[in-house]
Amino acid sequence: MDETEDNRAPSSRRRLQRLAAHLETLSLPPEAQLIRSYCSKIAVSKSDDYTVLGEYLAGAYKLERDKIFQFFRQNPSLQTPVEIGKDEHRQLAMRQLLALVRKGGIRPLRYLLEEPAKYFAVAEAVGTVDISLGIKLGVQFSLWGGTVMNLGTKRHRDAYFEGIDNIDFPGCFAMTELHHGSNVQGIQTTATFDRLHQEFVINTPNEGATKWWIGNAAVHGKFATVFARLKLSSPNSHIDVDMGVHAFIVPIRHLEDHSVMPGVEIRDCGYKVGLNGVDNGALRFHGVRIPRENLLNRFGDVLENGEYSSDLPTVSKRFAATLGELVGGRVGLAHGSVGVLKTAATIAIRYSLLRQQFGPPNQPEVSILDYQSQQQKLMPMLASAYAFHFSAQYLVKRYGEMKLTQDDEIIADVHALSAGLKSYITSYTAKALSICRESCGGHGYAAVNRFGSLRNDHDIFQTFEGDNTVLLQQVAGDLLKQYKRKFEGGALTVTWTYLRESMSTYLSQTNPVITHRDGEGHLRDPTFQLEAFQYRTAKLLHTAALRLRKHSKQLGSFGAWNRCLNHLLTLAESHIESVILSKFVDAVKSCENAEARVVLKLLCDLYALERIWEDIGTYRNEDYVATNKAKAIHRLVENLCFEIRGVAGKLVDAFGIPDYMLRAPIGLQSGQYSEYVHYIGF
Amino acid sequence: MDETEDNRAPSSRRRLQRLAAHLETLSLPPEAQLIRSYCSKIAVSKSDDYTVLGEYLAGAYKLERDKIFQFFRQNPSLQTPVEIGKDEHRQLAMRQLLALVRKGGIRPLRYLLEEPAKYFAVAEAVGTVDISLGIKLGVQFSLWGGTVMNLGTKRHRDAYFEGIDNIDFPGCFAMTELHHGSNVQGIQTTATFDRLHQEFVINTPNEGATKWWIGNAAVHGKFATVFARLKLSSPNSHIDVDMGVHAFIVPIRHLEDHSVMPGVEIRDCGYKVGLNGVDNGALRFHGVRIPRENLLNRFGDVLENGEYSSDLPTVSKRFAATLGELVGGRVGLAHGSVGVLKTAATIAIRYSLLRQQFGPPNQPEVSILDYQSQQQKLMPMLASAYAFHFSAQYLVKRYGEMKLTQDDEIIADVHALSAGLKSYITSYTAKALSICRESCGGHGYAAVNRFGSLRNDHDIFQTFEGDNTVLLQQVAGDLLKQYKRKFEGGALTVTWTYLRESMSTYLSQTNPVITHRDGEGHLRDPTFQLEAFQYRTAKLLHTAALRLRKHSKQLGSFGAWNRCLNHLLTLAESHIESVILSKFVDAVKSCENAEARVVLKLLCDLYALERIWEDIGTYRNEDYVATNKAKAIHRLVENLCFEIRGVAGKLVDAFGIPDYMLRAPIGLQSGQYSEYVHYIGF
Repeated sequence: MDETEDNRAPSSRRRLQRLAAHLETLSLPPEAQLIRSYCSKIAVSKSDDYTVLGEYLAGAYKLERDKIFQFFRQNPSLQTPVEIGKDEHRQLAMRQLLALVRKGGIRPLRYLLEEPAKYFAVAEAVGTVDISLGIKLGVQFSLWGGTVMNLGTKRHRDAYFEGIDNIDFPGCFAMTELHHGSNVQGIQTTATFDRLHQEFVINTPNEGATKWWIGNAAVHGKFATVFARLKLSSPNSHIDVDMGVHAFIVPIRHLEDHSVMPGVEIRDCGYKVGLNGVDNGALRFHGVRIPRENLLNRFGDVLENGEYSSDLPTVSKRFAATLGELVGGRVGLAHGSVGVLKTAATIAIRYSLLRQQFGPPNQPEVSILDYQSQQQKLMPMLASAYAFHFSAQYLVKRYGEMKLTQDDEIIADVHALSAGLKSYITSYTAKALSICRESCGGHGYAAVNRFGSLRNDHDIFQTFEGDNTVLLQQVAGDLLKQYKRKFEGGALTVTWTYLRESMSTYLSQTNPVITHRDGEGHLRDPTFQLEAFQYRTAKLLHTAALRLRKHSKQLGSFGAWNRCLNHLLTLAESHIESVILSKFVDAVKSCENAEARVVLKLLCDLYALERIWEDIGTYRNEDYVATNKAKAIHRLVENLCFEIRGVAGKLVDAFGIPDYMLRAPIGLQSGQYSEYVHYIGF
Repeated sequence: MDETEDNRAPSSRRRLQRLAAHLETLSLPPEAQLIRSYCSKIAVSKSDDYTVLGEYLAGAYKLERDKIFQFFRQNPSLQTPVEIGKDEHRQLAMRQLLALVRKGGIRPLRYLLEEPAKYFAVAEAVGTVDISLGIKLGVQFSLWGGTVMNLGTKRHRDAYFEGIDNIDFPGCFAMTELHHGSNVQGIQTTATFDRLHQEFVINTPNEGATKWWIGNAAVHGKFATVFARLKLSSPNSHIDVDMGVHAFIVPIRHLEDHSVMPGVEIRDCGYKVGLNGVDNGALRFHGVRIPRENLLNRFGDVLENGEYSSDLPTVSKRFAATLGELVGGRVGLAHGSVGVLKTAATIAIRYSLLRQQFGPPNQPEVSILDYQSQQQKLMPMLASAYAFHFSAQYLVKRYGEMKLTQDDEIIADVHALSAGLKSYITSYTAKALSICRESCGGHGYAAVNRFGSLRNDHDIFQTFEGDNTVLLQQVAGDLLKQYKRKFEGGALTVTWTYLRESMSTYLSQTNPVITHRDGEGHLRDPTFQLEAFQYRTAKLLHTAALRLRKHSKQLGSFGAWNRCLNHLLTLAESHIESVILSKFVDAVKSCENAEARVVLKLLCDLYALERIWEDIGTYRNEDYVATNKAKAIHRLVENLCFEIRGVAGKLVDAFGIPDYMLRAPIGLQSGQYSEYVHYIGF
């Protein structure tokens, strides 16, 4: 697998010599000999500029991405300045979006419906331009457009497709209320059917029911998909029957003069921590009347006579189907978050290679990435960015299959997978952005170097489209359902099938020989790594099920769940890590270029072993890993960080973010300091 | 110690009943019985409104703090708005500072010199108003003022005291260069003595030597303390002799018309991640001439004849003495960072008590602070805020003693202690601010609720006045020196004396009975907790010394240090945690009010046990803690979080931040939602 050819270019020869000299200076411990041999092979491989790896990562939509990057490159007036006030930023984001669609020829709504993977690639690229723009695009096409197209029927598609597609109809997604975000079933806005006029009457019954954080509402929106409790009059009673949460198209501003519609009250949610290019507003409805046809009626309809009709038998099934159509937003956030992580890691790693500080007595200063502490901050992050990349690709692929087949098993799988990956990746990236800033010291604090806006804009990825803590609980709940199924002999959805085997492994005794094995070959064997991850998940699942059963007798199911909540969240994270690792292992195997495969394997090993080391307490407590093995894992993690440092510059190059999109002077491919000095006017 | 009187007010009786009902609902495990009894006592204690605890925390400078708060309350035009651009913010910060000194009667320079503890209390209060203002104040008085007063001699104090004190002379601290931050000895700006004219000539020899990030330079500064390599001509050679880094007073703008001085080039470092009220600039010097008297000559002087004179024998001793005077900045940042943590924790905890989401079937929703996951996010943070408070108080006290006595042992102690606490506390607070935002969901993302600006402004606390990673290495270096001393029989400075005993404990075998003891009484015994912390430090220190000795043969001292760097950083953190815990244990003991003491003990136990649990892998790997004990610690941490949740509102009240200073609508003491709704214009 590591065969190399000897047609070295002179530049790569020099690079090899430098690398060799570097390795000598820092004199490796014996256990790193094997890895060192890999590294020298990388340095002389054909894929010297990492285009092979770059192409392997870029996937099918590279051209689409480059088209977007070029569009903004050629339109400097559409680029977001480093400092920009809220109001100006909102106008700019709208101009950017309109230009992209009307001049750039990008049609996100079509992609969303016809080729979701292309939509997500476009959204990620647009987020690289400005995260506000990415979210503005998501609000218009995925949230507003997505609800009309997916929760509505032909009459809605016919009436709204063109206007949404070309942004003549800018719209909002009005679900969240002041008092209810995560608990969507608790929202209180009402839509009461008036049979006489064949209309729904939308009302905000109290302060807490004010729609809040509604993107596009403060300034640009003309419509909103309003989520409200459907109220139907009952023939036998004066009290309306609550049919549960449904979605309605409500015009909020006039199409022509943009004045606010009668009965609608709009306020500006104001300045935010980030994403100030998106105009979030608050909405109240005072007897706002909309035609009966404005109910998005795919999963439930109200007939002219006021009767309710649905193919789905219960309120909760209809609610699940309605929310189920929103899963695309999570896929987009997971995918987009990986893009943010790549951008930040590129800047931090390039600067850490450039920046020199201190050194051995009477010798030149060394790059700060030569410090073990800096490697520990940034190399596992680089490995994670690669790991997440392959998982997000997998998620997008599964989402496409789901939209194509509408297969129930795939639907369930994509729901849990998107909840888990959105939660895990965005939480990781949020922390990583702080680490990047801090690891770049003072120069990381210059706004032009971007960590501030990336962090502030990305921050809310952890909250919207499902709070991460809530989403992880959905994953845990799903795992427990799968666990129950397993013991009832039913089928497991694809992503969880590993549980069957690992559960048996868990239920047997740990093997004391394996517990003590600490050779590098064993630790770098994907079989060991995957088993360790899956063992932990299976163990946590089994004990969670036992604890829940025990506590629910006394505390009820809600109380028991809460008593085990930390345990359940750990279980969910552990499961997602298992999925991520297994997709990474697959990606290593599927990489046809031998040199690229060697580097990916290094990253995959670091991802796996660093995760195990981070949770070594659990492994030790279960005696799954003996002390000697724990220490060997720790040493190997440090050695892998050191090895990857040697090729880190190339690995971020492979993310393929051009300098004019990266923008941060300290993160450019060359001339960093002089660009930085130039930026402030010298 | 837990005697209570039965003169309950009706309101506290109701609160007790509610608390009891709450405790029943969630039905405690048996091991929490003891704690429950504490809680019910707290609820009925005389110190029901926690004024006792609040007073215990507030310390000696409560009046000074309240004076500052009131001053800004009465001057609304001086309050920082939620959204403000860079240029406007800079002007506002200057207006705030001038008003504080000239109208508010606050004289920070005097306090700094005469009563440092008062200075730090004032700086923290000012930081509560606006962190930018706190830093602007620190630049003017502690950095610019501090260098003139502490590195200069009488002639400088006579000439500059008044102007600095009343801000007629706004000034800068020009140490950092584009290429050198942490490695101050690597700076390249030169100050060459011209004997003929009795002047120093200041030069920026290359791009990398550009002074960078200089606070007050872009707009307001008239002077700068410039750190430069002193160059003296040698009688025997044409080449000037480099005498090392010295500090010089350099006028950068005219006192009258504020025009830039000839030969000085100033640029604006521009928009930053945060602290945009501070005008950071870049400076270049082209043959700028200053009189000989402008050398700050306390530790080294140049005589008229061009000869160098100093009481200190070597360049490195003079450098150490010069930098040593800057330690006050670190004390201020550690202290200020605790203030930021208290503010953020207050907002997050009050909102988590208010906010309800989900609940048992057919019952009202529960507060999100009732969720185990939310408790896990916020209760250890609350405990840490208390822990850091007492450590910061101790540090300020020691700093005062140092300034008074100039005792060498105290100087060494304060240096390591300030480096360690500044690093540890600011790193913790930076992470905590992100957790606070995320734990408050969408409403945490509204700028008015402050997590964004707190995080952005505080972020750089981790970097300036010494990068945290570099400072921790100083702590580790100091510990190794102490370790060497111990084996040579010398004295240990006060803070480290525990090492002597714990080192012996470590060198003996662990006791298998203690390893397995898992009763609550044992785990909550401060002796066990302190021993566990100190054991870990001693163990890490001993093994670090062995590893460094081993590696330095092959790699040299720099290479060996780097090979062990992660280990050394862990050692430093472990040591600081030991110090923090021991100061917390002392503070619990010293609290005279029995009820307040009970609550403090709860917090102290949580701080100690959560830290042990977070690093349980290390304890397990050394078999210091058996599996059963590890699990008991984990259970107790969850139970303590649960217990403290019951009094969390009171515990943040005790921080004593008035609503008009806290400002975040979701963090107010009452009427949070309606204030929030009102804020956006309903």
